[in-house]
Amino acid sequence: MLNRINIHSLLRQATHRYIVTPVTMFCILFVAFHAAGAADIASNYSVHSDEIIDVTGVKVSIDLAWTLLCGFLIFNMQAGFAFRGAGFLQQKNTLNYLTMSFMDFCVGGLIFWIFGFALMFGGSFLAYGLDAGNMLIGYSGFFLSFSSYDYSTSSLWLFQMMFSAAACTIVAGAVAERIKFNTHIICSATLCGIIYPIYGHWVWGGGWLSRLPFGSGMIDFAGSGVVHGIGGLIAFIGAWKIGPRFGKYNPDGTSNMFHGHNLSFVVLGTLFLLFGWFGFNAGSTLGSTDLRVSIIAANTFLSACTGGVALMYITYYDTGKFDIVMACNGTLAGCVAITASGAYVSHWAAVVIGLIAVIILRESLHFIEVRLRIDDPVGAISVHGANGLWGLLSVGIFADGSYLGVKGLIMGSGWQLLSQFIGCVVLLIWALGTGYILFYILKKTVGLRVPVGEENTGIDLYEHGIPCYPGFN
Amino acid sequence: MLNRINIHSLLRQATHRYIVTPVTMFCILFVAFHAAGAADIASNYSVHSDEIIDVTGVKVSIDLAWTLLCGFLIFNMQAGFAFRGAGFLQQKNTLNYLTMSFMDFCVGGLIFWIFGFALMFGGSFLAYGLDAGNMLIGYSGFFLSFSSYDYSTSSLWLFQMMFSAAACTIVAGAVAERIKFNTHIICSATLCGIIYPIYGHWVWGGGWLSRLPFGSGMIDFAGSGVVHGIGGLIAFIGAWKIGPRFGKYNPDGTSNMFHGHNLSFVVLGTLFLLFGWFGFNAGSTLGSTDLRVSIIAANTFLSACTGGVALMYITYYDTGKFDIVMACNGTLAGCVAITASGAYVSHWAAVVIGLIAVIILRESLHFIEVRLRIDDPVGAISVHGANGLWGLLSVGIFADGSYLGVKGLIMGSGWQLLSQFIGCVVLLIWALGTGYILFYILKKTVGLRVPVGEENTGIDLYEHGIPCYPGFN
Amino acid sequence: MLNRINIHSLLRQATHRYIVTPVTMFCILFVAFHAAGAADIASNYSVHSDEIIDVTGVKVSIDLAWTLLCGFLIFNMQAGFAFRGAGFLQQKNTLNYLTMSFMDFCVGGLIFWIFGFALMFGGSFLAYGLDAGNMLIGYSGFFLSFSSYDYSTSSLWLFQMMFSAAACTIVAGAVAERIKFNTHIICSATLCGIIYPIYGHWVWGGGWLSRLPFGSGMIDFAGSGVVHGIGGLIAFIGAWKIGPRFGKYNPDGTSNMFHGHNLSFVVLGTLFLLFGWFGFNAGSTLGSTDLRVSIIAANTFLSACTGGVALMYITYYDTGKFDIVMACNGTLAGCVAITASGAYVSHWAAVVIGLIAVIILRESLHFIEVRLRIDDPVGAISVHGANGLWGLLSVGIFADGSYLGVKGLIMGSGWQLLSQFIGCVVLLIWALGTGYILFYILKKTVGLRVPVGEENTGIDLYEHGIPCYPGFN
Repeated sequence: MLNRINIHSLLRQATHRYIVTPVTMFCILFVAFHAAGAADIASNYSVHSDEIIDVTGVKVSIDLAWTLLCGFLIFNMQAGFAFRGAGFLQQKNTLNYLTMSFMDFCVGGLIFWIFGFALMFGGSFLAYGLDAGNMLIGYSGFFLSFSSYDYSTSSLWLFQMMFSAAACTIVAGAVAERIKFNTHIICSATLCGIIYPIYGHWVWGGGWLSRLPFGSGMIDFAGSGVVHGIGGLIAFIGAWKIGPRFGKYNPDGTSNMFHGHNLSFVVLGTLFLLFGWFGFNAGSTLGSTDLRVSIIAANTFLSACTGGVALMYITYYDTGKFDIVMACNGTLAGCVAITASGAYVSHWAAVVIGLIAVIILRESLHFIEVRLRIDDPVGAISVHGANGLWGLLSVGIFADGSYLGVKGLIMGSGWQLLSQFIGCVVLLIWALGTGYILFYILKKTVGLRVPVGEENTGIDLYEHGIPCYPGFN
Repeated sequence: MLNRINIHSLLRQATHRYIVTPVTMFCILFVAFHAAGAADIASNYSVHSDEIIDVTGVKVSIDLAWTLLCGFLIFNMQAGFAFRGAGFLQQKNTLNYLTMSFMDFCVGGLIFWIFGFALMFGGSFLAYGLDAGNMLIGYSGFFLSFSSYDYSTSSLWLFQMMFSAAACTIVAGAVAERIKFNTHIICSATLCGIIYPIYGHWVWGGGWLSRLPFGSGMIDFAGSGVVHGIGGLIAFIGAWKIGPRFGKYNPDGTSNMFHGHNLSFVVLGTLFLLFGWFGFNAGSTLGSTDLRVSIIAANTFLSACTGGVALMYITYYDTGKFDIVMACNGTLAGCVAITASGAYVSHWAAVVIGLIAVIILRESLHFIEVRLRIDDPVGAISVHGANGLWGLLSVGIFADGSYLGVKGLIMGSGWQLLSQFIGCVVLLIWALGTGYILFYILKKTVGLRVPVGEENTGIDLYEHGIPCYPGFN
Repeated sequence: MLNRINIHSLLRQATHRYIVTPVTMFCILFVAFHAAGAADIASNYSVHSDEIIDVTGVKVSIDLAWTLLCGFLIFNMQAGFAFRGAGFLQQKNTLNYLTMSFMDFCVGGLIFWIFGFALMFGGSFLAYGLDAGNMLIGYSGFFLSFSSYDYSTSSLWLFQMMFSAAACTIVAGAVAERIKFNTHIICSATLCGIIYPIYGHWVWGGGWLSRLPFGSGMIDFAGSGVVHGIGGLIAFIGAWKIGPRFGKYNPDGTSNMFHGHNLSFVVLGTLFLLFGWFGFNAGSTLGSTDLRVSIIAANTFLSACTGGVALMYITYYDTGKFDIVMACNGTLAGCVAITASGAYVSHWAAVVIGLIAVIILRESLHFIEVRLRIDDPVGAISVHGANGLWGLLSVGIFADGSYLGVKGLIMGSGWQLLSQFIGCVVLLIWALGTGYILFYILKKTVGLRVPVGEENTGIDLYEHGIPCYPGFN
């Protein structure tokens, strides 16, 4: 036995030293030097600081600053997702969840750089070098190389990259405490590289949904559908295919509550998410010379506040307890719902949207857990999926015509709602369809779940070899 | 017994389903559609991005970006207040404190949207739609509706909303570990909707204090008095009326130390507060085209550093221990004190103001705890209240005339100090007076304290039904 | 015995009351009023908001906003350093490490204000009042007083101050769990006031390294060498001179693993560091009118992602476990390496630089721990020191000529690499030399280590009188 292990270990070391590393190095260097030829060419596109002597140049630099700073804020949401999720879980799986969240943006960042961004924004003409693409898919901007090696493209990439990472991390919550680590990484890479960018292209990259002939075409301002809807619906498929955690459901169909191990993390994570959400929504104008940004930021905050207060007191009337976890969920549901419509609606509408969001959240949580018996440890499906769909519809209802002429039902026009409804249906078909295929393939190949024994012991020790709080006492 | 509970529970459910929810919905929709008529009108005021073709438009968008981004930073202070406070408390009350902090900005945000903002900034003409108001109170901008539905007003609202939420959260610390949850929420709503906006109107909304005929009128740059003074003095009344925690004082009048359960949270929260304070102070120019912002930011940081170093070593000379909690308090005291004067003083003065702040903090902590025997678990009264007053006075002493012509004692003029002194006296009368009335009414109606048995067991289990770290071991 | 303590205590109190406080007060006030005369003069330099009526004024205010906001983000890295480090350590030393991190920026801020900034940027002409200095050292801008009391100088100071604090905090990690608190503070003050500014002057303050006649002179965009190299190499000397923690090495030379007590803090801290690093690197243009900022931000993120993914899977091939701690280290190594070169290289090069960074990190960690038997609890020497040097060299290899004409080996020119190599050699000589002298003097005077008994009990109780989680159970 000892010999076998040694041989196995030696083989692995040898494989690593003589095969994996050189091949990886070669691949990256091949790509690198392939792209290197573009350096001179692309530099022509860069606007240098000494050239900024007119109002147009100044405007460009303000919008650049706004987009980047908002992108940085969105990165902070990764800390939010990581800690909110980790707080909801049992202590024995904390490190596993933190690792999944952390790797999501690392892997996602690279995949989105290699091809995700190109599939999504190719043909959108939103920045230099994004000129090849059609109504269904984009195909320019790979590796941000050649003509897409430009300040404008890098800025767009950075901002959008944060969105794709958010979509991945949403899935992590629903399948937590039982998924294999590598399975999750493959899932994230596929989501970030294929599923998310293609739907995103349809809505944001100049694709067919944005050109629907009803109203202003399908509209999703900052990604209720593109980011949260996709993430939440893939999470739904994931949680369904992988099955509930061991012990979640009793033989009689009733469910047991698994308390999170650290509710302070839930609060901390939620606060980080709200902080980052300002960048998520207000940044989606891609510039503060669009003065609508302040309306968007205020709407985001009002919807979140409404969600928090409403769900806190609704829960209190039900249970007699002030449940901070539900209040946190409520604020997030409000944020998800206002994400599509924040730019197009008045402040009062933001409050109504947030209020409806928590009612949907509450019903959805119950429906998913009790009726469908799908185990979603952090409530990702209801917060992001159900409210992502509601957010899309809310544009068609509450848009007041004060921004880009988008008008919803309250202004007497139903066409925009039709576009939004089509967007929802397409979202459901695409996300559930590709998600099903993805998890089917994963199940048949690498497998979805850790062994049941390891699930009981905790994934931290099994996959990571160490608990999250090793010397804590 | 079982039947009674069931009937009670059914009644509550029915009330909820058939009365509370519909009434809430109706109220909100009534307000909403009332405000809806304003959508078209207000859109006339919006400056659209394609109109920004001149320097004035660009300037507007820079200042907008600055105000919003600083507002987002201030939101991060909510995480600071929550975790700093929670770390100071006993483990059994952690979740309660986090919940109070979290709900403060949710409730505060809505109240400040409905009427707080209108009372405070109506008549200030600082943004569109704020044209009705007098020297005592404002009355325009309710719901940010009609003509106040504009990018400029939303931006001002968002920024100021964060300030009002900060004032509420300051109170939470002083009454922690014994106040009833709902009592705190009512207190916050009143503070955020009435007490804070009215004093704020006098100072920032074009009210009478800002027009005092001495010096430049009473000046409070970013809210040493308006935010921290109000919060700290209401906290004083609250902590006094509610009485000390059970076991804090012995029969012989000596006091016992209740160690915080997690000092890492105190450090984390303090760092968040310092991070947000840059936005709090430097953002209060409402634009970075006022180049004074960098002086303000540097002054804030210098005062904080001085406070931290000074109190660390003063405490060390007293006790022989390096007390990080006192160093954290010292940095915050420095920040509070420089908040009123940061824009008007030189860097050396910021250091002196920070140094005096910690001496005041130290004496105040001792005075409050030992002489007055008022139990303030997190030191909110001394950090925010005492130093808020000191901050107001410091403008009259150290203002060097380099910004907006404000000159203090060191420039040979005592008039500004007189204005600041009047501002302090009014602040004391207003905050202590309204605070007394508020807590008197609260005591006679909903009651202030949780039952003594529950205080011993911990409010987390009593009010929230769950500990903060449920599965931690 | 009791009497002796009382007398000792009384003496200390008297000393404090009648000597320390007045002397401190006097010193500060002396300096203060000395500088006060400058208030009027300097105000001439301030550009007031009403003067901004042209494109140049607007450009100044955009760049000011960018520099300040990025500076604020860098401040958040202090939370990152504090929590990342604390998570790596044993529970009994957590509070000590948090205190060291916290005081680093407090002390560093004051020292850098008094003279560090003047030594570093005097003679650089980067802002008002920085006109005296030579190729070796600067001598203007002390106390930011007289003509350096200007918005432009305060802005530069704030931004650069955050860098110097980061350098100090890097050292804290390597000497943690055994250094005396006051020794660390003296070390930080020296580093921040003398060692760091002088090398910094040579590279950024117009000194001789920046004027090397090869290529564009020695280049360190955002401080791979100046900040991380200096910090990491002083950390090397510190960890070496202070010796390993008790029990780290067995008599046979093998080493024992000390598990961090809270790996969630390591993840939290790393996320804060990555968040702040956007400001660190992209902010170093000192303005977003230099549109290169987006390339820099994207390069930073890509290098970090590559580092995270690469080290995660390299470690997995070695150990069969997914080690989040190594992934965190990998992202930081990528960030450190790209810090010098981020502005000058293409995106593919950022990925290659990140990949090489983790290989260097891995070899360095092994070399330091196993060969040199130097005990570096948080890996600061390898992350910051080794990769700081690699970052400097990477400019000379991968610079593609698209920014400021800097060309490296891949563009066919070796001169830049020569400059970078000279910069590395000078860095090694300067940091190791001054570091040796510093720790030699500290050892002979105040002493380096806490007593061995206290090291076993934990420094928290010994130096701070309280554990980090007092009432946790």
